[in-house]
Amino acid sequence: MSEQYPVTEQVVASFANSKSDRYREVMQSLVRHLHAFAADVRLSQDEWDTAIDFLTRVGHITDDRRQEFILLSDVLGLSMLTVAINADTEGATESTVLGPFFVADAPEIELGGDLAQGAKGTPCYVSGVVRSADGTTLPGARIDAWEADEDGFYDVQYTGDRTAGRGWLRAGPQGEYRFWSVLPSPYPIPHDGPVGELLTAGQRGPMRPAHLHFKVAAPGYRPLVTHVFVKGDPYLGEDAVFGVRDGLIADFAAHDGGTAPDGTERAGRWAQLTFDLVLAPEEGK
Amino acid sequence: MSEQYPVTEQVVASFANSKSDRYREVMQSLVRHLHAFAADVRLSQDEWDTAIDFLTRVGHITDDRRQEFILLSDVLGLSMLTVAINADTEGATESTVLGPFFVADAPEIELGGDLAQGAKGTPCYVSGVVRSADGTTLPGARIDAWEADEDGFYDVQYTGDRTAGRGWLRAGPQGEYRFWSVLPSPYPIPHDGPVGELLTAGQRGPMRPAHLHFKVAAPGYRPLVTHVFVKGDPYLGEDAVFGVRDGLIADFAAHDGGTAPDGTERAGRWAQLTFDLVLAPEEGK
Repeated sequence: MSEQYPVTEQVVASFANSKSDRYREVMQSLVRHLHAFAADVRLSQDEWDTAIDFLTRVGHITDDRRQEFILLSDVLGLSMLTVAINADTEGATESTVLGPFFVADAPEIELGGDLAQGAKGTPCYVSGVVRSADGTTLPGARIDAWEADEDGFYDVQYTGDRTAGRGWLRAGPQGEYRFWSVLPSPYPIPHDGPVGELLTAGQRGPMRPAHLHFKVAAPGYRPLVTHVFVKGDPYLGEDAVFGVRDGLIADFAAHDGGTAPDGTERAGRWAQLTFDLVLAPEEGK
Repeated sequence: MSEQYPVTEQVVASFANSKSDRYREVMQSLVRHLHAFAADVRLSQDEWDTAIDFLTRVGHITDDRRQEFILLSDVLGLSMLTVAINADTEGATESTVLGPFFVADAPEIELGGDLAQGAKGTPCYVSGVVRSADGTTLPGARIDAWEADEDGFYDVQYTGDRTAGRGWLRAGPQGEYRFWSVLPSPYPIPHDGPVGELLTAGQRGPMRPAHLHFKVAAPGYRPLVTHVFVKGDPYLGEDAVFGVRDGLIADFAAHDGGTAPDGTERAGRWAQLTFDLVLAPEEGK
């Protein structure tokens, strides 16, 4: 139990007339917990200075292409906790963190098209069905997908405006989806900024196990934000952002030449993921 | 008691090998309290999005002249709590928040000089002795002072690089200090940014009661960061940053003409504050 200081109740009281009940509830709880933290560790003035400087640098490194606050939330497990609190509905694909690399205005690709757009890596054929937990297929569902390339970088981490390993498509008449991309690779989260210092001081690694991101939306269903992780990845047990869930680990089958499911003849190595994306109805539907 | 999620203990464990015991203690406590907050209020994904956007905007409005993170800490009472945790030593002047308007490289003024440098307001003669709790005077102590002008603005809130209502001086041979400045005025903290939105949603006022800031340093003594508040100010009971302490409220005596303590003849209104600045020995001294 932390020592109580009079200022805590003064601040709690200052939110008593908040415009909404929810705002009052959230802010009063935030104040109590933040104050309990500072009291428990007897935060020093130097540590407070360090925290202000840290947050200032997190703010200044954040721009349209780098979101260090999301990264900070991710490495503190707050992003994954928020996902867990707003839990999955029975039978739907499990959710995980959005991460800092989602781009809202990615280009549309056609069903069966190439999402890699020049991203380096082993070609990977990805397909499955978008459906609800009761088996209803969801034609026209919007599927956003994005991933790091073989060198561990997302397109937005390169200079220039190239889009690669990123795009969106609509599920076909039977809810089916398919596209080519590249086999995901494990990669370090950006650790050349303040969040990297936080990891270093904690002697924590920056690696994430290989994964392909999905964001799926269909009218009447809860949006799904998830990844599919590559079975056998060495970092599955030590994800820097705590995003791994057992139900999201899938086999990315390895092939060498032959005919791909879309009938194309492949020379050399390619991979294949088959994964259904299962949505939960919106609450009240 | 908040619901527990497995991710919380995973994140706590990730800091087990921190480079220092203190870092581990602080980060593990921060994680437990932040997670308990999110679990208690069942933070929604939209609220998490709002928080990321809010912090991003706090970061982007912060620059060399505006420190919105300090302002945020101030209005959440975390600054004042940190002051309270690192409590005053018996007999010393009470501490309060530094605030976001301190400038490290303010100009030096001579003992008895003019710190106003053109800041608008009623002239105010400020004097006293810098000493320790046992009465030892502290010649040569460094005194930084800064304040808002009659319109409620600090120099750094104006465009241009003018320094006014700000400076530092050294105490004289008997620990005495004196300078001219202006009578402090109540003012709103900057509330045209994200912190202003936070106050508005809480239906909280942005006002601070009138005060003169001091930062005092002498070798062998704990640095003192404080304000002196103007007795009778209407905002003493509702300081937006919770900085008021009874021992820091002082009489700013009103005069009209006459001879000031430094022998100058005054035409018109002027004010006078007499306030001793009492330092505590450094720990272990």
